[in-house]
Amino acid sequence: MYSWRLRKSAEKRFRTGHPWIFSNELTESPKGLPPGELVQLTDETGAFLATGYGNPNSLIAFRTLSINRADEIDSLFFFERFKNSIELRRRSGQLSASHRFLFAEGDYLPGLIIDRYIVAQSRSQIFVVQSSTAGMDKLFDFWMKGLEDAVVYENKQGLSKIKWSQTAIVLANTSKSRALEGVAIENKKVIKAVENMDLNQIEVLIESATPGLEPLIFTINILGGQKTGFFLDQRKNIKLLIQSLTNSLPKDRPLRVLDLCCYVGQWSTQIAAFAMAQDLKTELHLFDASDDALQLATKNVARHGGNPAIVKGDVLKSLSHLPDRYFDVVICDPPAFIKKKKDIPAGSQAYLKLNKEARRKTRDSGLFVSCSCSGLFTMDEFKKTLARISFDKDHHIQWIEQGFHSPDHPQRLEFPEGTYLKCMIGLIR
Amino acid sequence: MYSWRLRKSAEKRFRTGHPWIFSNELTESPKGLPPGELVQLTDETGAFLATGYGNPNSLIAFRTLSINRADEIDSLFFFERFKNSIELRRRSGQLSASHRFLFAEGDYLPGLIIDRYIVAQSRSQIFVVQSSTAGMDKLFDFWMKGLEDAVVYENKQGLSKIKWSQTAIVLANTSKSRALEGVAIENKKVIKAVENMDLNQIEVLIESATPGLEPLIFTINILGGQKTGFFLDQRKNIKLLIQSLTNSLPKDRPLRVLDLCCYVGQWSTQIAAFAMAQDLKTELHLFDASDDALQLATKNVARHGGNPAIVKGDVLKSLSHLPDRYFDVVICDPPAFIKKKKDIPAGSQAYLKLNKEARRKTRDSGLFVSCSCSGLFTMDEFKKTLARISFDKDHHIQWIEQGFHSPDHPQRLEFPEGTYLKCMIGLIR
Repeated sequence: MYSWRLRKSAEKRFRTGHPWIFSNELTESPKGLPPGELVQLTDETGAFLATGYGNPNSLIAFRTLSINRADEIDSLFFFERFKNSIELRRRSGQLSASHRFLFAEGDYLPGLIIDRYIVAQSRSQIFVVQSSTAGMDKLFDFWMKGLEDAVVYENKQGLSKIKWSQTAIVLANTSKSRALEGVAIENKKVIKAVENMDLNQIEVLIESATPGLEPLIFTINILGGQKTGFFLDQRKNIKLLIQSLTNSLPKDRPLRVLDLCCYVGQWSTQIAAFAMAQDLKTELHLFDASDDALQLATKNVARHGGNPAIVKGDVLKSLSHLPDRYFDVVICDPPAFIKKKKDIPAGSQAYLKLNKEARRKTRDSGLFVSCSCSGLFTMDEFKKTLARISFDKDHHIQWIEQGFHSPDHPQRLEFPEGTYLKCMIGLIR
Repeated sequence: MYSWRLRKSAEKRFRTGHPWIFSNELTESPKGLPPGELVQLTDETGAFLATGYGNPNSLIAFRTLSINRADEIDSLFFFERFKNSIELRRRSGQLSASHRFLFAEGDYLPGLIIDRYIVAQSRSQIFVVQSSTAGMDKLFDFWMKGLEDAVVYENKQGLSKIKWSQTAIVLANTSKSRALEGVAIENKKVIKAVENMDLNQIEVLIESATPGLEPLIFTINILGGQKTGFFLDQRKNIKLLIQSLTNSLPKDRPLRVLDLCCYVGQWSTQIAAFAMAQDLKTELHLFDASDDALQLATKNVARHGGNPAIVKGDVLKSLSHLPDRYFDVVICDPPAFIKKKKDIPAGSQAYLKLNKEARRKTRDSGLFVSCSCSGLFTMDEFKKTLARISFDKDHHIQWIEQGFHSPDHPQRLEFPEGTYLKCMIGLIR
């Protein structure tokens, strides 16, 4: 195995547990290493620090896979990591419906994200895998075998009845960050198929946000949709909204909801299911820029008793025709406006503009839900932006809930780059 | 009414909604005003900005009560504010058990905090009121009458059956911040008594953290205890812990819990009630510096099926005799180590030391709960401190939950000084 030495001055940062080493923290240039090759990291004296993979083309020259010298990086290594990730999800009660199976650095596997979708009314499942580094691409055979072993393990442990033969695998190497690693951005591809499974239109189970209800069925487009096909990270925040709604229902008219950047209608569908359980009518407005998303969203909401109105448009341009102070609930869940450091000024302005508009659509005593999934936009900065729309002559907002990733997106505090989702719920006064 | 003019340069900050004006932001010196007197704030041209109260002895010269020129500051004004606070608590489902009835600036009434305790097995209640300013002291008659009107209003609206005659009022003017206002720090006093109510030992109802259970009975000491007698702000975070525990129970032995700075045993009692509902045994270790607190904690835990061990000590000094890597759950919920800006360096060190020790007591695969109620210690700083104990050769922590105030402590983002509580729950790997 290749061996790289870490500069003495960088050791302190390494010891905090941060899994990334930058090229200028190494004693010699990483040039010459085949991208993604396994590397042993040592201190200046040659003593073992970590095993990981390197990439001379990336600013992040090395990512730690293990600090345990005994670990061989093979399928067994991945299997052990997957067992840990299964245990965390089991303990947070998430195995029976779709969930994030593995959250990259958050689960001690840099460069690898795996979402698991449980297919409805069928003992089958789909793992959608995002490899974002040359290193993880190279380790393909190991993690594939590790995944198979993990599924067999779950069967044996009674954690799941879904067999490997009924498990589809989709590789979603679509992330733009792959360009930084010098590896190709690809179309999604099915690398393990299951018969009669239409991955452009598949019904999957998502945990219900309303206590006591069975998981909801959502139709999603895994091959054609964004990211892995669904934003699993918002499940917990939707629960917070449903709790806040429970005693906030209008008695004599439908509940009016504006769902901005609705994608496949996750928020509205959960609200529709909640309303149906309460025998309450809804007036749901689904807003998105994509016809395909709106079509799926309509289907999902309708399946759970809603009859949504569709509004197609650019959320930063075309809210003005919607009525002001009208909606009981406005959900503002835009795509990331800040993807790089240089986006921060313009992105912050975009958040401000959108939130100002969206708040204006919320009626007095309504609930305003505001989210940001820009990791570079800290909670403190996000709050400062929302502060600017929280108080004027006519409106105030009391913020009653503050939400983050669902627990299947564990945070490692020594790796703040892994924290990204923020959700605030406010009551308009 | 006195009238003060705001400097042009300070107007922008005022317009953001921040309710405080500092003395150097006024055009003239506030000297000469009787402390706590009502003041009209205008801009430099004399146009109305706000009504509030002033204090020439405090750095915070003026606190906004209303930006609505039509508002007279009288009992009706307080009644309207209380109606809003009741509505927020009704909507977050908190009226039927004890809750924070009013959260100062968070509910647009600077200087006034009111906790409401619902007495068990008796149609009676106690409001414990903390006035922290000269202004709120002076407005005593108004808020007392407003409170009476609010109770009558709740009766009429069917929100509560507890009458004003069965409502006790305790004035807890014990806050050290009163010194900054030049008003006396006092012992708690009963200003409205209800017969046969022992405020040194009273049984109150606290919402259960376990879904589906009736509210739990806690014995608390309102007159002799800390603050208003109970830390209501942690209710939501305890729910997060109980959720995290649900699939984390040992099968063949009692659940081992270490409850640091347990006060009256809120965390442990909720765990005991949860365990009893699951027919599970517990081994609860209550740690506190106060004999009185430990006595109440023991009583509360025992009432809900626990049989706790008591450990008296200073949490910063004497954890070393407790076994390492032993407890399934360690709760680290210390008093505020940072009360003033100058405390930040030493306070941060104290948080680090305590959390390091407490984490060491948690067994592998156990849950570690860490809280800070220091407002001057931001979430970002708290996380940075916890990052330092989250990774070493032998232990890692995956943080799965992130909690804040319960919703009856609403946040106003334009007033960041009102945000203080933080709770992180991590899984030891």
